Amino acid sequence: MNTQIKTQTIGDFFIRRLHEAGIGHIFGVPGDFTLQFLQQLADRGEPEWVGCCNELNASYAADGYARIHGLSALSVTFGVGALSAINGIAGAYSEHVPLICICGSLPQRAIERRTMMHHTLGDGWRNPFLRAFQQVTVAQAQITPQNAVEEIDRMIVTAWRVKRPVYVELPSDISYLEINTPEAPLQLKEPESDAERLSSCVQAIVQQLATARYPAILLDMDAERFRVLDEVKKLAEKKSIPVVTLGHLKGCFSEQHPLFAGTYKGDASNAFTRKIVEESDCLITVGYRRIDATSGFFTDRLPKNAIQLETYTAEIDNDHYEAITLRDVLVGTTALMDPVTSITSYNNTTSLKAPAFTPANTALKQSEFWILMQDFIRPDDLIIAEIGTAAAGGGSLHLPDGCTYITQSVWGSVGYTLGALLGTLKAAPHRRQILLIGDGSFQLTAQELSTILRQNLKPVIFLINNGGYTIERTILGLHETYNDVANWNYADLPKVFSRKPVATHVASTAEALHKIMQEMGDEFTFIEVVMAQDDASAGFIKAGHACAELDYGPRGPQSRANIRIPIPDADAH
Amino acid sequence: MNTQIKTQTIGDFFIRRLHEAGIGHIFGVPGDFTLQFLQQLADRGEPEWVGCCNELNASYAADGYARIHGLSALSVTFGVGALSAINGIAGAYSEHVPLICICGSLPQRAIERRTMMHHTLGDGWRNPFLRAFQQVTVAQAQITPQNAVEEIDRMIVTAWRVKRPVYVELPSDISYLEINTPEAPLQLKEPESDAERLSSCVQAIVQQLATARYPAILLDMDAERFRVLDEVKKLAEKKSIPVVTLGHLKGCFSEQHPLFAGTYKGDASNAFTRKIVEESDCLITVGYRRIDATSGFFTDRLPKNAIQLETYTAEIDNDHYEAITLRDVLVGTTALMDPVTSITSYNNTTSLKAPAFTPANTALKQSEFWILMQDFIRPDDLIIAEIGTAAAGGGSLHLPDGCTYITQSVWGSVGYTLGALLGTLKAAPHRRQILLIGDGSFQLTAQELSTILRQNLKPVIFLINNGGYTIERTILGLHETYNDVANWNYADLPKVFSRKPVATHVASTAEALHKIMQEMGDEFTFIEVVMAQDDASAGFIKAGHACAELDYGPRGPQSRANIRIPIPDADAH
Repeated sequence: MNTQIKTQTIGDFFIRRLHEAGIGHIFGVPGDFTLQFLQQLADRGEPEWVGCCNELNASYAADGYARIHGLSALSVTFGVGALSAINGIAGAYSEHVPLICICGSLPQRAIERRTMMHHTLGDGWRNPFLRAFQQVTVAQAQITPQNAVEEIDRMIVTAWRVKRPVYVELPSDISYLEINTPEAPLQLKEPESDAERLSSCVQAIVQQLATARYPAILLDMDAERFRVLDEVKKLAEKKSIPVVTLGHLKGCFSEQHPLFAGTYKGDASNAFTRKIVEESDCLITVGYRRIDATSGFFTDRLPKNAIQLETYTAEIDNDHYEAITLRDVLVGTTALMDPVTSITSYNNTTSLKAPAFTPANTALKQSEFWILMQDFIRPDDLIIAEIGTAAAGGGSLHLPDGCTYITQSVWGSVGYTLGALLGTLKAAPHRRQILLIGDGSFQLTAQELSTILRQNLKPVIFLINNGGYTIERTILGLHETYNDVANWNYADLPKVFSRKPVATHVASTAEALHKIMQEMGDEFTFIEVVMAQDDASAGFIKAGHACAELDYGPRGPQSRANIRIPIPDADAH
Repeated sequence: MNTQIKTQTIGDFFIRRLHEAGIGHIFGVPGDFTLQFLQQLADRGEPEWVGCCNELNASYAADGYARIHGLSALSVTFGVGALSAINGIAGAYSEHVPLICICGSLPQRAIERRTMMHHTLGDGWRNPFLRAFQQVTVAQAQITPQNAVEEIDRMIVTAWRVKRPVYVELPSDISYLEINTPEAPLQLKEPESDAERLSSCVQAIVQQLATARYPAILLDMDAERFRVLDEVKKLAEKKSIPVVTLGHLKGCFSEQHPLFAGTYKGDASNAFTRKIVEESDCLITVGYRRIDATSGFFTDRLPKNAIQLETYTAEIDNDHYEAITLRDVLVGTTALMDPVTSITSYNNTTSLKAPAFTPANTALKQSEFWILMQDFIRPDDLIIAEIGTAAAGGGSLHLPDGCTYITQSVWGSVGYTLGALLGTLKAAPHRRQILLIGDGSFQLTAQELSTILRQNLKPVIFLINNGGYTIERTILGLHETYNDVANWNYADLPKVFSRKPVATHVASTAEALHKIMQEMGDEFTFIEVVMAQDDASAGFIKAGHACAELDYGPRGPQSRANIRIPIPDADAH
């Protein structure tokens, strides 16, 4: 046991711990209560500071970074900064993203003297913002010289272990105070499983699998967040078990693998995938949450006796297992099973090549856009798709091997993806990254494009300009102005944000878009793609109608004539 | 008593009540849990819907609207929308702005069935967001068919009476359900004072004033928010009492009035104003809060025995008066006093005309900019100044009669003013409105410029491009990159946001700026004004240094060489 002691300032210790936890970049916006911490960061030189235009965007960037990198940090100032970021933090909670929100807070002496400061409610009340963050983070801390070592370590370890955000307040006047700190670096490791509980759990699963004729595995986001996809693959391959993912987890299990059996979204799944899941006599779910947006609006029908694996617990028959880890369960189960001699193919994905298609010189249709996109994507691409027609189309792509697909289906905060893109680009600058985003969504967070340019990052951005919130028009308000947005000259925006030459395009036809895709280099590229307001796939429109039924109930206005995009005749069964 | 009953849907009743309360515009962003409410709003035709680019900006717009109009409403969707707006709501709390935040929430049946929905934390927990809003609003409600009439009225009346934000959740599936509602319109009126308490309070004040040789009145924001400025003026005039305002309240008492005796900010005030306040033998403060940013960083020295009037209470000597209203106290006191025969002039404001000045063709300086601005402003202008060099200079302007000056000094959320401008423009479209904002601040909320253009509003916007956060450079990080922002082509931005011709300019010299000001029409005008990173007034730099001392304490890094903008030699006493 290393008991060496190092005298260090609180700020330096915090920064060292973040760095030891593998964090290479810190996102945020400066404020007077954080400048001293940013100065310590500047003096140390790493992690690298990534200044953003505003805190919400910075929180999205930190979220995107953590999805790829495994852990992230955000620095904001008290009150104004923290509350601007709280939607992004809640999103990280909802979508299981480990993120450390560091709030430069009131100086300790103002807290102790109870003096009233700017960036407060001005009523002397102690700490309303910490209480607000208690609602959307898994742990909170107020650092003092007395608790700094323990609390900083607790925050980092907790965020990493449970894959949720934490909120830490660092008073501005204690960053430069010296404390004794352990010299040994911080170790991030999962807790140990209880040996008996693990063994019993594994036995129970192996027993069920041994007699199962139609086993299947269904993955929700924790499989990806807890990085057990290799372990899932080994288990699946050992016994040739088909693997299905939820729609928003697309690509986390290779769509080119023979055991990949599709994405599941209740009624909206294809018949083959539904059968694999719903008729399985031994379905193993990993982190499954039954949420409207990811379950085909509650049309999912999982077998009643499914084995439910969570990250640190399991439900099997009537037994609840605690003090185990998902990884240990998967590894243990795989080890105990006899291997099959060959793997069956469950992959009925049609060819990666799009159907033969001559791009026309007429107004671009959604259907054409997605055929071109299917041809455009290539192995190892990182694709980020915003809620709306972007994620609807993105969700229908057949992903080449090694692709990462990111969307935010549960929290569903529009505008998320542009901020997240900054984070994923900083986390994986050498991968090609493609953003698919609608005009309405883009307007929420548009300025962060300037940070992407300022950082010399090189994404390919497809901005779908379809005159407002088409997703809302599938729900309510087909021609209502409340679903309109201003019609920006989108392709000129990168030129406002950067004084260097920037490649931007507008495509209104498949032919033009095809040409741009063909000629594109590997530089930053921004393409405004113009499509009609009411152009959307039948599946997307049906989802909008299902959402309206759920949201407004039998007395809602959704059945009024001409009030939303209708389901195309051929699909209106 | 009107007991007529009207059958109405819950949504229609809510909208009627908002309209009866005088609200003419509702700001916000649509979401699937609000569309049914927006449809009811569209069907009714008023209040007018003002769709914004994002929720934070919309909350700032609602704040600006309420400051001018007296009450405002904001419509956002559950979770993602509400949390994006919460910083603006907290700002309204901190700065005493009455605002009704209407959150279209989960359908009632999802709440009752405990089904997991999108826009939640996905863990089935009941209502974390309402709890977050409990920290930053003065009242909260979850509307049901059983409580709708009472809760809707309670929310509106509460926000109006205490000049603070409230948060109301309207489940998406109950908007179209019918309830019995009172036919009589909603009446907004202040509570009645208790007659004895009022009379005793007034007597106590009159008694002190009767013997006072140097009475004075010091106004903080509640004087403006509770609309008692006329009553203050009548009291001051009746006994020729000098009136001083805090800096952020500038202009609420006419700076052309003979009784106007300056703005008070502790040590940073001029000697005359300090004497009036600090040596008064009967100082009446109205809503005074001792906050670092508005008290010259706690260098204020109010007489110990000051009469403290609050909106519904008063402190006089050792007595605390409850159940009175500020208005009644002011009116009652004025009525009981003998009038003076003539009013003394305390107004030592130098001429409104700026000093003789020939705009040069050399790099524009802050000092030159504010001379030109002094010449530019005219009676009845509405001036909004962002925290930073903008508010520092704006605070030094001598305001012509009828001007309104808005800044957000207590909450101090950068980027606020651009959103707020949308709101003030909708509230007072016929007044000339001038925005003064820095580049760093502008980047937080820049997209809302597009809504101002979309609404055909015609502000004059001066964007001070000084290469980042100059206010932070006065505190820490003179040359540090964490205080830099991307150098946008700001003047091209309005052309991205609007497809109609827009007047935009760049001015780098006083001569160029002067010419633009001379030739300006009454159309939308955007001027990028280029100044140096470290150019700031001595007073502003001193405030930055004082802020650093307060924030970082004796061990902070602020005394390191070359780490912040130094105080100019002539002023470094």
